Amino acid sequence: MSRASLEKFKYFMDIQTRWNDNDMYGHVNNAVYYTWFDSLVNNWLIETGVLDPLNSAQIGLVVDTGCQYFAPLSYPQSVRAGLCVAHIGNSSVRYEIGLFKDDDERACAQGHFVHVYVDASSRKPKPFGDKFRTALETLV
Amino acid sequence: MSRASLEKFKYFMDIQTRWNDNDMYGHVNNAVYYTWFDSLVNNWLIETGVLDPLNSAQIGLVVDTGCQYFAPLSYPQSVRAGLCVAHIGNSSVRYEIGLFKDDDERACAQGHFVHVYVDASSRKPKPFGDKFRTALETLV
Amino acid sequence: MSRASLEKFKYFMDIQTRWNDNDMYGHVNNAVYYTWFDSLVNNWLIETGVLDPLNSAQIGLVVDTGCQYFAPLSYPQSVRAGLCVAHIGNSSVRYEIGLFKDDDERACAQGHFVHVYVDASSRKPKPFGDKFRTALETLV
Amino acid sequence: MSRASLEKFKYFMDIQTRWNDNDMYGHVNNAVYYTWFDSLVNNWLIETGVLDPLNSAQIGLVVDTGCQYFAPLSYPQSVRAGLCVAHIGNSSVRYEIGLFKDDDERACAQGHFVHVYVDASSRKPKPFGDKFRTALETLV
Repeated sequence: MSRASLEKFKYFMDIQTRWNDNDMYGHVNNAVYYTWFDSLVNNWLIETGVLDPLNSAQIGLVVDTGCQYFAPLSYPQSVRAGLCVAHIGNSSVRYEIGLFKDDDERACAQGHFVHVYVDASSRKPKPFGDKFRTALETLV
Repeated sequence: MSRASLEKFKYFMDIQTRWNDNDMYGHVNNAVYYTWFDSLVNNWLIETGVLDPLNSAQIGLVVDTGCQYFAPLSYPQSVRAGLCVAHIGNSSVRYEIGLFKDDDERACAQGHFVHVYVDASSRKPKPFGDKFRTALETLV
Repeated sequence: MSRASLEKFKYFMDIQTRWNDNDMYGHVNNAVYYTWFDSLVNNWLIETGVLDPLNSAQIGLVVDTGCQYFAPLSYPQSVRAGLCVAHIGNSSVRYEIGLFKDDDERACAQGHFVHVYVDASSRKPKPFGDKFRTALETLV
Repeated sequence: MSRASLEKFKYFMDIQTRWNDNDMYGHVNNAVYYTWFDSLVNNWLIETGVLDPLNSAQIGLVVDTGCQYFAPLSYPQSVRAGLCVAHIGNSSVRYEIGLFKDDDERACAQGHFVHVYVDASSRKPKPFGDKFRTALETLV
């Protein structure tokens, strides 16, 4: 799999690394990348106004995630994260994420994150409304 | 993708969930599963005698991970984790993992975890020795 | 401060350490001890039948914590955790915790954890009922 | 204990909260505050040029931590963290930390973090050199 470049992505945030992100081997642990994916996706959803985690009638449950690691990242460096949408279904969406350092054009790591949106109470899939779908389309 | 059954796996451990494993939605967060994969694989390596994390001349770096989530898991329940090996290369190995609850025959979640083994100092790939390869073959 | 001994504590659990509990320096990170305190206290509350985290009308909020670290702990070792109660107020309780390894009589680390119990909706302090107070008294 | 005000502190950083910082009750978990303390102290040490975590001959081990929680913090809000030094010994230092939100003058949480500096190999206490002591004094 080839390393994605910055221009693939539509929404960006700079991730502040933490002391604890590094593991015994001195680099960011593989599981920590997924906590960044979670924050990146949810930050975008919250900023866009389509999610209020504790009050929305529709929330996203994660059904599939994955990551390829090409080059290590380490605290205390800052990491640039990029987000785009690869597929929109009736109630599910596949986000793709790239992580970049310094002026690297190619991702140090890249992954995917599939959300199924459900009714917050019943936890059954609930199709996207127009506002949500329109927001997702801006990331395609 | 179909849900794996218990008999696919060769090595098992019971994972003790923690208060903090659950996120705002009351279930184990998707990233936490990968901390379990890490512990499962490393527990097996350490018990088998092929890895001493801070002293071994050869250590494993993670290059690819993924997980599918079929049914939620939640603290305080205990989780049964199963491990097997799907592919052994010269210096890399693809582990597969299933997570089970109670008497479920089918996995609540399943994933993969690819390690490349490298020289601990140079961090360059280093082929498996006989002892390591023989140990990995018991998980195929 | 002197190191507590095992007999100070009334309730025990064995904590399963995780790969990620160790930080860059190869020992369990200071913050991780608090995730163990959280699990120890909540495990006891749940087992005793006085708390169901997502459904109880009364939940505990943490208002004060502390820990002294006397000797390092490291993944993959198992850790024995002991819990007792040092003070019971109207709606608050001070738990004390000791962490032990192997056959050590003296704690490797010890700490405190103060919960104020509140109404789950209003988040205002709510005095202990008889069942809860009686349960807490068994840990004094 | 009274809530500290912003002017008590000498060094500041804005902490980016993460989805996973919140626990089941919808607020930042008590243990997460300590991961912030760790990052705050180490960021300052690294920026000041007195610590390179994996290469320094002298590293800090944590021997005592504590935190009081006055008002909840929650992802996705940003948190302002302040750091000062309350006591400098031969080889140990007591840092104090305050966490603030928005335009609050009083801390939402405050804590301490005691480091003993040791030789990175022997892990025995090693007195501060002049450069390190001078740096610490700027935070008093």
